[in-house]
Amino acid sequence: MVEGQEDVIRDGALGIEGDTISYLGPVPEESVLAQYDEVIDMSGKAILPGLINTHGHAAMSLLRGYADDLPLQTWLQEKIWPLEAKFTAKQVFDGTALSVLEMIKSGTTCFLDMYDHMDQVGKVVEESGIRARLCRGAIGLCSEAEQEAKLQETVQFAIDWNGQADGRITTMLAPHSPYTCSPSYIEKFVEKAAELNLPIHTHMSETRAEVEQNVRDYGLRPVEHLRRLGFFDLPALVAHAVHLTDEEIDILAEYNVKVAHNPGSNLKLGSGIAPIPKMLERGIRPGLATDGAASNNNLDMLEEIHLAAMIHKGANQDPIAVPALTALRMGTSYGAESLFLDQQIGTLETGKKADFITIDLSGPHMQPLHDIVSHLVYSASRGDVCDMYVDGRPIMRNREVLTLDEEKICHEAMKSFEAMTR
Amino acid sequence: MVEGQEDVIRDGALGIEGDTISYLGPVPEESVLAQYDEVIDMSGKAILPGLINTHGHAAMSLLRGYADDLPLQTWLQEKIWPLEAKFTAKQVFDGTALSVLEMIKSGTTCFLDMYDHMDQVGKVVEESGIRARLCRGAIGLCSEAEQEAKLQETVQFAIDWNGQADGRITTMLAPHSPYTCSPSYIEKFVEKAAELNLPIHTHMSETRAEVEQNVRDYGLRPVEHLRRLGFFDLPALVAHAVHLTDEEIDILAEYNVKVAHNPGSNLKLGSGIAPIPKMLERGIRPGLATDGAASNNNLDMLEEIHLAAMIHKGANQDPIAVPALTALRMGTSYGAESLFLDQQIGTLETGKKADFITIDLSGPHMQPLHDIVSHLVYSASRGDVCDMYVDGRPIMRNREVLTLDEEKICHEAMKSFEAMTR
Repeated sequence: MVEGQEDVIRDGALGIEGDTISYLGPVPEESVLAQYDEVIDMSGKAILPGLINTHGHAAMSLLRGYADDLPLQTWLQEKIWPLEAKFTAKQVFDGTALSVLEMIKSGTTCFLDMYDHMDQVGKVVEESGIRARLCRGAIGLCSEAEQEAKLQETVQFAIDWNGQADGRITTMLAPHSPYTCSPSYIEKFVEKAAELNLPIHTHMSETRAEVEQNVRDYGLRPVEHLRRLGFFDLPALVAHAVHLTDEEIDILAEYNVKVAHNPGSNLKLGSGIAPIPKMLERGIRPGLATDGAASNNNLDMLEEIHLAAMIHKGANQDPIAVPALTALRMGTSYGAESLFLDQQIGTLETGKKADFITIDLSGPHMQPLHDIVSHLVYSASRGDVCDMYVDGRPIMRNREVLTLDEEKICHEAMKSFEAMTR
Repeated sequence: MVEGQEDVIRDGALGIEGDTISYLGPVPEESVLAQYDEVIDMSGKAILPGLINTHGHAAMSLLRGYADDLPLQTWLQEKIWPLEAKFTAKQVFDGTALSVLEMIKSGTTCFLDMYDHMDQVGKVVEESGIRARLCRGAIGLCSEAEQEAKLQETVQFAIDWNGQADGRITTMLAPHSPYTCSPSYIEKFVEKAAELNLPIHTHMSETRAEVEQNVRDYGLRPVEHLRRLGFFDLPALVAHAVHLTDEEIDILAEYNVKVAHNPGSNLKLGSGIAPIPKMLERGIRPGLATDGAASNNNLDMLEEIHLAAMIHKGANQDPIAVPALTALRMGTSYGAESLFLDQQIGTLETGKKADFITIDLSGPHMQPLHDIVSHLVYSASRGDVCDMYVDGRPIMRNREVLTLDEEKICHEAMKSFEAMTR
């Protein structure tokens, strides 16, 4: 299936040379097939681009189900932040390993991560074989000295890890949000990102309360606030973007700001429903994201694709809003654009990286099988993901993860969680 | 897990005698276990009541993905109804078999079905071993003679099949909706249902347009319209109930009317989001439902439970709306109440029918494992359903369906679809 060329190849084949897609089309003749080192029969499966998770905090899967059904600020301030304060490098490694395992098993080949102890995240990415855009998220609610230390750490991590793991790791800079970072602190990140020629990422307009606070503190809504800080002069990605006026959407479109839409997290925390149909109308092409598993409570991108295709229809009473193909693109090619990696990944095209997954089409929920895109978006679930390749290397075959030890990771995650809560 | 007693038994056991739950509690001593014919190790799995799907049209799975992303009336009138007109007994059998297979594999032990050629549906239920509440849905947009014939068929089916399949099949009467059945036609169903002592079911207030039409045609919104026709004097179940005023919710609560909430179908068709939090406040305990697979596009009740727990939080910007345990109950015990089967099923209690499923808790998306209810609602998916028992009889073991031929059913469904569309 060639998402991005708007067509589905039936009975097709995909060829790989090294880490790159070298062929896409009908199954070649035996003589051509014989020139490949290995030929794998994928009949009964759809091949599609790996799913791309454009915003998250992988280590937070250790807190999955730890504090449900609370408002964002209570959840953050009374539950999550106190426990996160207990996170050591060990927790970050174990939580991230659990998340990457879960992401592989649900079809995600590339994820953005914004957290702390990011070298641990880098190690997991190296080991797992998947791709990531990593950034140390800096919360500025601390002394100037601590702020400075975090900025230095951010910059050092971004420099040290950009291009690591055979280029599978790229980095960006990430002040946490306008409500946790002062304008001058944000400006320092903008300056550094420009200097390093790296994109920049932040949380923006996730809740109504946060927007109101921005207006109280700075006299501006978050979009205009960030615009004036020069944030949008760089390649920029904002997560959430739930509470936006039409004028704010216009500004985001004008500056070509990328948006990470987190439908599951926004629903579960009661933050609201982002105005995605309006963004699409103005030409914004949002990526999809799970956010951390503590607020989702899983990292299943097929579920986010499904939610993106469903909730805007219901909320707007418009059954045309976010059609199936658009939702699938949000989880693949728009995601690649949102991470500024669309030259390498996001679609199946010759010359792009061989990052792809297969989906089993044989389940009863996939019959009768005629409109594959519809079934992938509205009916497939994580259990249907069979195989995964990243950079042409097999990461999972028939649901067996080849690069990570599943049992050990689940066991260590439980131990790591218990060490924090007892 | 004993849903309904608000507690989770860890390291527990469930005993069966015949079709009935005879024991619930800690694992008994060896000497007690030895008295059972068979002891099955379910470690690493949660045992919970079978999921109950309170509204659907099983045969419509043949039309899955056939016409997506259209408004309800266009979808019905231009796409679905013309193709449904081609449905013969064969299509109903094949579509229903496909649906029942899908429902088993996603944990549904009991479903309501409202369709045509209902004897075919009855046959599939008999063969599959699961439980169903069945009704012939009558659309009154036809001549008086045809209306009369449909009513007769409805009544005859309800009489003939009530109590069949060792009591696993029960029946009800079902005029399709106030917008497809005249008041006098609905009254005839009310009369017959009272006479036969059977509950009654209909579609109600699914779309804004349909409510407006009711006001135009009869000067009343649907709830008051049905109340005056005596519909609510009987044990009554209404599907959808999306567009309701506060006064209408009061009437439904006052008459103890059961509600089948269809979050997926209502989202996908752009019908809207039902006021479930308000219903819960007034003491209504809605069941959950998938509706037909043509508008969902699957029959996965774990997905409906998940949607019910998520969308009302987002739509109301209230993270407390529909907590996890409430959503789980909507899919189990409230569902049993909605089908008037709560004396037999819906919770795990000694003396109730042994209708239960197991969920694999070992996946990375279920770690760390501490709050099982949270994980079942927010993170489990259909692939985690392992085993199913109905009336104490194994229907599925380790995802292998024991009563139906999966391959044959998928094959026949595809053939049956092709026969209609070519």
